[in-house]
Amino acid sequence: MANPVLPSSGVLSPLGLDAVRVLPGFWGDRIALNREVTIAHCLEWEEREGWIGNFRGERPRRGREFSDSEAYKLLEAMAWADHPALPALAGTVAQAQEGDGYLNTRWSGSRYTDFEWGHELYCYGHLIQAGVARLRTHGEDRLTEVAAKAADHVCRRFMEGSETCGHPVIEMALVELYRVTGAERYLEMARRFVARRGLPALADIPFGRGYYQDDVPVRQAQVFRGHVVRALYLACGVVDVAVETGDEELLKAVEAQWERTVARRTHLTGGMGSRHADESYGEDYELPPDRAYNETCAGIASIMLAHRLLLATGDARYADLAERTMYNVLATGVALDGRSFFYVNPLHVRVPATPLDGVNHAAEGGLRSPWFDVSCCPNNVARTLASLPAYVAGASSGGVLIHHLTPSEIRHGGLALRVETGYPWSGSVSVRVLEDGEGRVGLRVPAWAADATLARVPVSSPDAPLPEGPVIRPVDPGYAHVEGPWRAGDEIRLELPMRPRWTFPDRRIDALRGSAAVERGPLVYCAESVADEPPLGDVTARAEPPVEHASDDGVVELEVPAALGPAGNGPWPYGPEPADAAGPAEGADVRLRLVPYHRWGNRGPATMRVWLPIQEGRRA
Amino acid sequence: MANPVLPSSGVLSPLGLDAVRVLPGFWGDRIALNREVTIAHCLEWEEREGWIGNFRGERPRRGREFSDSEAYKLLEAMAWADHPALPALAGTVAQAQEGDGYLNTRWSGSRYTDFEWGHELYCYGHLIQAGVARLRTHGEDRLTEVAAKAADHVCRRFMEGSETCGHPVIEMALVELYRVTGAERYLEMARRFVARRGLPALADIPFGRGYYQDDVPVRQAQVFRGHVVRALYLACGVVDVAVETGDEELLKAVEAQWERTVARRTHLTGGMGSRHADESYGEDYELPPDRAYNETCAGIASIMLAHRLLLATGDARYADLAERTMYNVLATGVALDGRSFFYVNPLHVRVPATPLDGVNHAAEGGLRSPWFDVSCCPNNVARTLASLPAYVAGASSGGVLIHHLTPSEIRHGGLALRVETGYPWSGSVSVRVLEDGEGRVGLRVPAWAADATLARVPVSSPDAPLPEGPVIRPVDPGYAHVEGPWRAGDEIRLELPMRPRWTFPDRRIDALRGSAAVERGPLVYCAESVADEPPLGDVTARAEPPVEHASDDGVVELEVPAALGPAGNGPWPYGPEPADAAGPAEGADVRLRLVPYHRWGNRGPATMRVWLPIQEGRRA
Repeated sequence: MANPVLPSSGVLSPLGLDAVRVLPGFWGDRIALNREVTIAHCLEWEEREGWIGNFRGERPRRGREFSDSEAYKLLEAMAWADHPALPALAGTVAQAQEGDGYLNTRWSGSRYTDFEWGHELYCYGHLIQAGVARLRTHGEDRLTEVAAKAADHVCRRFMEGSETCGHPVIEMALVELYRVTGAERYLEMARRFVARRGLPALADIPFGRGYYQDDVPVRQAQVFRGHVVRALYLACGVVDVAVETGDEELLKAVEAQWERTVARRTHLTGGMGSRHADESYGEDYELPPDRAYNETCAGIASIMLAHRLLLATGDARYADLAERTMYNVLATGVALDGRSFFYVNPLHVRVPATPLDGVNHAAEGGLRSPWFDVSCCPNNVARTLASLPAYVAGASSGGVLIHHLTPSEIRHGGLALRVETGYPWSGSVSVRVLEDGEGRVGLRVPAWAADATLARVPVSSPDAPLPEGPVIRPVDPGYAHVEGPWRAGDEIRLELPMRPRWTFPDRRIDALRGSAAVERGPLVYCAESVADEPPLGDVTARAEPPVEHASDDGVVELEVPAALGPAGNGPWPYGPEPADAAGPAEGADVRLRLVPYHRWGNRGPATMRVWLPIQEGRRA
Repeated sequence: MANPVLPSSGVLSPLGLDAVRVLPGFWGDRIALNREVTIAHCLEWEEREGWIGNFRGERPRRGREFSDSEAYKLLEAMAWADHPALPALAGTVAQAQEGDGYLNTRWSGSRYTDFEWGHELYCYGHLIQAGVARLRTHGEDRLTEVAAKAADHVCRRFMEGSETCGHPVIEMALVELYRVTGAERYLEMARRFVARRGLPALADIPFGRGYYQDDVPVRQAQVFRGHVVRALYLACGVVDVAVETGDEELLKAVEAQWERTVARRTHLTGGMGSRHADESYGEDYELPPDRAYNETCAGIASIMLAHRLLLATGDARYADLAERTMYNVLATGVALDGRSFFYVNPLHVRVPATPLDGVNHAAEGGLRSPWFDVSCCPNNVARTLASLPAYVAGASSGGVLIHHLTPSEIRHGGLALRVETGYPWSGSVSVRVLEDGEGRVGLRVPAWAADATLARVPVSSPDAPLPEGPVIRPVDPGYAHVEGPWRAGDEIRLELPMRPRWTFPDRRIDALRGSAAVERGPLVYCAESVADEPPLGDVTARAEPPVEHASDDGVVELEVPAALGPAGNGPWPYGPEPADAAGPAEGADVRLRLVPYHRWGNRGPATMRVWLPIQEGRRA
């Protein structure tokens, strides 16, 4: 059961890398590129930057206080990908472990002197996740030994007391280690770390304790707040603890926090984060497109959380948000060549980026960078893509549920299925039964897919009367089920409506007032302008049905009518006349090309906007 | 000539504290409160926080690396206010000066090891400004001696080489010291500091060199960028150098940068700063009301720069921006009791602040704080209010120009004038001639004041025929001039139209699309909601003429019709229907009270918004 998350109870069980093979297609291509290119790219940069040398004792120590965690995330990626470089890197890491299990290249000698910013438990969390991945894909070895020894050290050192880490992740790591080993102390340690938070356990800081979710106990919080990755990693651990301890109240608390966060603090792409200063959520409805932070890691953390809530509850809305975030944050975070990355993912970029040569010292930038001083995102992308097959499908009591529609082969119980589709470009999905078998097959119909249809097409066979053609039925968003038994060759056909659609914001989102975006299937689109293309600074679109253009590789681009304003402006940008009065009519009429948001920034320095000002806030 | 800025050339000369007395009224009351309350308040807090103890050698040293500068800003305030606490504080500061003139309580022993963040030259800048203030109001004493010694040390240490300071201010301080002493080395040192910047002179940092205006030479820059206070302090010094060296090209460069900044990077209040992470300007048209930074110090720096450009060019637009910023940033930055302060001045606050007890460790907060870990703003308010009379009027070749309409007595050349007005609440201004005299009198008619009128009302006198009633003439924005000669008792009456007016944003300001604000005279208004008042989260206003309500103390509040939306919301804040379709009509109709923005936050924790969503982007 090669899964990053394997709860002992819950409505659904996940199917792991041993049960799901993702085939060439949108995600299959990215998974292959990740294994073949991105993992080696990350390893090379971590060597170059000295972060791996730190484990060999090279001095001066290099990198930020949490750089050890980057090697661990990469080890986790290698474990899921069964990458040949794993044993050597694990051996290097092992050199730095002390006799009692302590392992940290920054704080050795001044252990546990800075819980707010030291990240020691955070680093262990990633080490343990790597160990769990290795146990589930390979079995015990040097890496799993190091991870278990570190986990035991943590339990001895922290079981009593009131301490915890400024950056969560240890919680979910310990629960998963409990799940794979059965050792109760890991679960109990995780439970205590969760319970301590918000009492408070950490010092006040200028950002406030909300920054690291230490302002109120988890059970009392109303919404996710503070540093987004911290908030979501914590919530993952809380769900894990709640599920394993049967704490329904705790699970409900996280569900309610998720609900409010999704309704009021989430960008259209599924991205989370509205403030740069502390990489945090904004207040409710504070969702600026230009200063959207939407850290790639936050998107990944949101996918991790949604996956856990889906398993615990079986509610398709969690898979909906995961899908939105996979296509519009995770896929955006890495370049088409697998060698450069976005750290932040704004929805509006006014000024083309200046290309950088080498490491990006900031998190920002309108071009993907090969590496960052803080390179959580590349390694996080690597481990997520390497484990992505484990997110695709699940087992329910009666059969198999397909959460994410992508070419794949799924085997579970009495079922062997092959999913074929050009999704997300095409809305046609075929699920072919590979062997005679039993069991119910469920396909998730995304929330945006009104008017979807499903057909069961029995295989032609001399033993059965010829089918009278497929029986097509409409299916609502959620899971659409088809019952067995099955004969090899049977097929399920799902048709999702892929008409591009205009999407409007809630009027309480002040930063988006008077604008609209275009979506098609699970993809958010954006206008992008490189080099000599018309600038987007003063564009006004008409919300007419977009025209589709498919390219040779299947990628669908769109076109909408728009007006470009004149370039000039007055000495003071506020005045007695409504802006619309001077209005877009004065500008030049253009056909505005829209590209999938996840593809933006692959053509060089560009300006970009997801939300397009539209005339009168109305459809044309 | 008691002036903070006294150029040796330029179109206008300033009139100093010796020529202008500000009488009770909007500014006179604040100047008095500042002298009587705020200066002592600052002194008390600087003692309590240990920043003054640092000069006495108390250990451990306390405060941030630039805390010395707070004592210097306060000394400058004391100098302008002729405050009795000055000699004692100056004596304390003097204790820390080393034999060669070096003076810094943080870096003594590791001098000049961090030009990027050390702030040593920045601290000298404020010390020298305090010394100049003392020289011009009192003459030589211990403070002026310490300041001159420090300035000489700076000239010796830095005249050769390529070094400069991460935070400008030394430039304008040295020019002013040159102006008061005539010693050319100070001007030359300032000129070199300006010329070095952007070559570059400082290290690259994650914020980029633009943060401290070291990305390009001043002469080549197109716009103000980076950290706002740094950008504006630098620009002040550049204007001073340009004026004293007759460098027209350099002056023109700053004028062009100012123009673009005002047209594209300035909030309605005159506030500048759109990003919290680095306290910086955003890109053109990046002007979010909720995350507007608008540091109080940045407003002050903008007033200082506008004043310099006004003196150099005589162009009333600089006084217009200064006035806007005085009434809507400077006046906002300090509470009505003079004992608490805003550091940032956003135009939209969604969540009422939690009252703090004592020092605010952050810059943010929807309530004014008595003190901050970084307390530049309180001391900057103190020195600015103490010197404010020097901004009120100027001398042109032919007479006197009144830049700012506030009760005052102005004496210059052959003219003695008394200004009486209830401005900014009333638009009626009377300038009475106190003694027989000669010369032209000019009054600034603000840019917003269409349909203003001016009348000359000669005094009744037995020597002259009875006047045939006042001759009223319309006057355009800019300076309206009335020629002498004058007899004691003559009067000039200016009537400014004070109808409240709706103001709309340029459509390129994405964050303000579909909203409008209300102004009256020089004041920006806002909706404020405390405690049980209706919340402002989903308000839609109708842009009808606001109704005025004057209170007993003359303060004018306004009222506009609005609708409040229902409280509920769906699970996902984006959908196929334009937000306006569900629309404000469903909500409750209210009369929305608007208060002057500078008065917000004086009634306790509140939500607030300057920009009101309006229906259809149109006047009703």
